[in-house]
Amino acid sequence: MFHLQVLGTSSAMPIPGRGTTAQVLTYNDKHYLIDCGEGTQTQMMRFKTKMHRLDALFISHLHGDHILGLPGLLSSFSLEGREKALKIYAPAAIKTLLDTVFQLTYSYLSYPIEIIPLEDFQVGNVVFETDSLEVRLLPLKHRIYCRGFLFKEINKKPKFDFYKAKALDIPNNYFHLLKLGNNITLEDGTFIQAEQVLNPPDLPKSFAYCSDTAFYPDLIPHIVGVNLLYHEATFANDQQKRAKETAHSTAEQAATIAQNAAVKQLLLGHFSARYKDLTPLWNEAKAIFPNTLLANDGETYPIND
Amino acid sequence: MFHLQVLGTSSAMPIPGRGTTAQVLTYNDKHYLIDCGEGTQTQMMRFKTKMHRLDALFISHLHGDHILGLPGLLSSFSLEGREKALKIYAPAAIKTLLDTVFQLTYSYLSYPIEIIPLEDFQVGNVVFETDSLEVRLLPLKHRIYCRGFLFKEINKKPKFDFYKAKALDIPNNYFHLLKLGNNITLEDGTFIQAEQVLNPPDLPKSFAYCSDTAFYPDLIPHIVGVNLLYHEATFANDQQKRAKETAHSTAEQAATIAQNAAVKQLLLGHFSARYKDLTPLWNEAKAIFPNTLLANDGETYPIND
Repeated sequence: MFHLQVLGTSSAMPIPGRGTTAQVLTYNDKHYLIDCGEGTQTQMMRFKTKMHRLDALFISHLHGDHILGLPGLLSSFSLEGREKALKIYAPAAIKTLLDTVFQLTYSYLSYPIEIIPLEDFQVGNVVFETDSLEVRLLPLKHRIYCRGFLFKEINKKPKFDFYKAKALDIPNNYFHLLKLGNNITLEDGTFIQAEQVLNPPDLPKSFAYCSDTAFYPDLIPHIVGVNLLYHEATFANDQQKRAKETAHSTAEQAATIAQNAAVKQLLLGHFSARYKDLTPLWNEAKAIFPNTLLANDGETYPIND
Repeated sequence: MFHLQVLGTSSAMPIPGRGTTAQVLTYNDKHYLIDCGEGTQTQMMRFKTKMHRLDALFISHLHGDHILGLPGLLSSFSLEGREKALKIYAPAAIKTLLDTVFQLTYSYLSYPIEIIPLEDFQVGNVVFETDSLEVRLLPLKHRIYCRGFLFKEINKKPKFDFYKAKALDIPNNYFHLLKLGNNITLEDGTFIQAEQVLNPPDLPKSFAYCSDTAFYPDLIPHIVGVNLLYHEATFANDQQKRAKETAHSTAEQAATIAQNAAVKQLLLGHFSARYKDLTPLWNEAKAIFPNTLLANDGETYPIND
């Protein structure tokens, strides 16, 4: 299970139907929150996100529309009795912000939080790792310090082929050994190598989160071939000048990045409140990169081949 | 026009259908925001509140569920180009909180804000005044410094009686002078005193906001006879012990305050998330004070006789 739930698709401020930025990435039984705009906890309840099971948080940058939901969310975890430690990968200054808010609002958390400053890492490097997933830092270009995140499967295991095993008359009770890569000798003396019943692993799947950023080709080599690229598309072509001034991207620029990085699928979000109808953004992106989706609040996107 | 729009009725954290505390009081063409929990700006959009026309903000205390929406709301005013200065009546430490958040999130407001510390005023005193409305500070009893607000009409004008004027054969072009309290002499020499065509003013109407607070009889003399009392009712009687520990009120305690202060109508809110069904709170309150309403997110309550 590898999928992304988008909780908010509005830039700068929420509008009816679009919250500010937050996404939950689920990989197997782990859940990771990426950015946390105001109202994220409400969106999680509305969209039935398993909010109390978050395993780690990733914060791209310290603009309000990406972090103002954090104090409330962390407090609510506390009210729900969370005890498990929570790691927050974020620009270092978030510690001052959280400390100040918690102190002045007399808030005490029921669980420890650990802040891991992104500034300690070079782009391209691994900031987080489990035995099956890693997160690398992506270079973005914004008005302030800002990083993207590449979530990628690692240590993919060869896949056991039931039919090959059956064809070799291997009894079921040997399957678990073979699945783990062990060679076996059957009771009749037949020697079976694990490779005989294992197929090569699937290619590792990956998701890249790129928000907020101006058009930034330096990003491309880091995200070549990803299965799903979320790239901000704050503006349509009518606002190219404003996109440049504010260090945001147009939908066409996001599609150009997707096209040059040969990603499998592009998901656009972080839309300016001026676009009630997003069709112009979609059309401009699809003209460059056909396999483009517009993100919807609450919708879940599978990350597959 | 004197009415209250409730934007959120949940305590501590939002739940589906109930935002955290925020209310907008409208008096004639002026709008005042009272408290500002996370997601207040989203609730304002959802409930079509005229958010960009707020004239002043009143903050009762610095718990997160009453203030975490403030940085986002103030930033959004800025994005919408507000220029008019905004006064915020709040505990003094809110300045440190806002300064820290705005500095660390690189936020600049397009308009000046002025923070008026509530600590500078004694309870019972006027903190804010227009030519037709005043706001006085109410004593509440909570775990931290916390004040309520009494909004009351002042300088009510005598009411011009059209029928009395017509009975005296006064031509219409004299009406505006009489309405302003001037005596007049008609062309035929008849002398008319303003009192002859003016009825006494209506009694001044008032609204009291009391959240958060433990059961606190010292409040009663300050709110005698108010037209609408909003009083927190976090718990039902099943949680009397918890109400005491957390310095909150039960619905029955809120009703007891309403009863002893002989208010006209009681509005309950700030409900604990544990009560999906609020009927027990309503029944317990109505047994003491029949004219009790349960606040609903988004609903508007007239303040009348």
